[in-house]
Amino acid sequence: MSTITIIGLVAAVLTTSSFLPQAIKTIRTKNTKDISLAMYAIFSCGVLLWLAYGLLIKDVPVIAANAITLIFALIILAYKLKYK
Amino acid sequence: MSTITIIGLVAAVLTTSSFLPQAIKTIRTKNTKDISLAMYAIFSCGVLLWLAYGLLIKDVPVIAANAITLIFALIILAYKLKYK
Repeated sequence: MSTITIIGLVAAVLTTSSFLPQAIKTIRTKNTKDISLAMYAIFSCGVLLWLAYGLLIKDVPVIAANAITLIFALIILAYKLKYK
Repeated sequence: MSTITIIGLVAAVLTTSSFLPQAIKTIRTKNTKDISLAMYAIFSCGVLLWLAYGLLIKDVPVIAANAITLIFALIILAYKLKYK
């Protein structure tokens, strides 16, 4: 595997996994005042389209990264809508 | 331009621009309590690596999307560190 591919994979793992600590924090505290509703609404739509794009081009890393990110983003969005 | 490419471009515009409302909200309110420091620290590292990946593969959309996202993420991270 080339160094460039490894950099891309590490980048994908970091940006995807970064939403986990936010999801955990939001679930634990139920405090969502400082989180932007617009951000998570727009971001979730974007990640859903990335997932569709990955399915259309049959690219497993794009599908996997965005499927996981979508779960985290939707959890945070749901908490923002429920506990605003 | 194919429908698949358009879906990918719209996805990129949405996920990149989604961080703007969060940045604006954070700059205006200076309230960062509910925002996860770990998320923005990990996310910023990931986006920086995506930017490096884009530069290495010379892909203008990857470079542009991640350069803009990095600016928004670093603004939010800086506010989180300053007003925690």
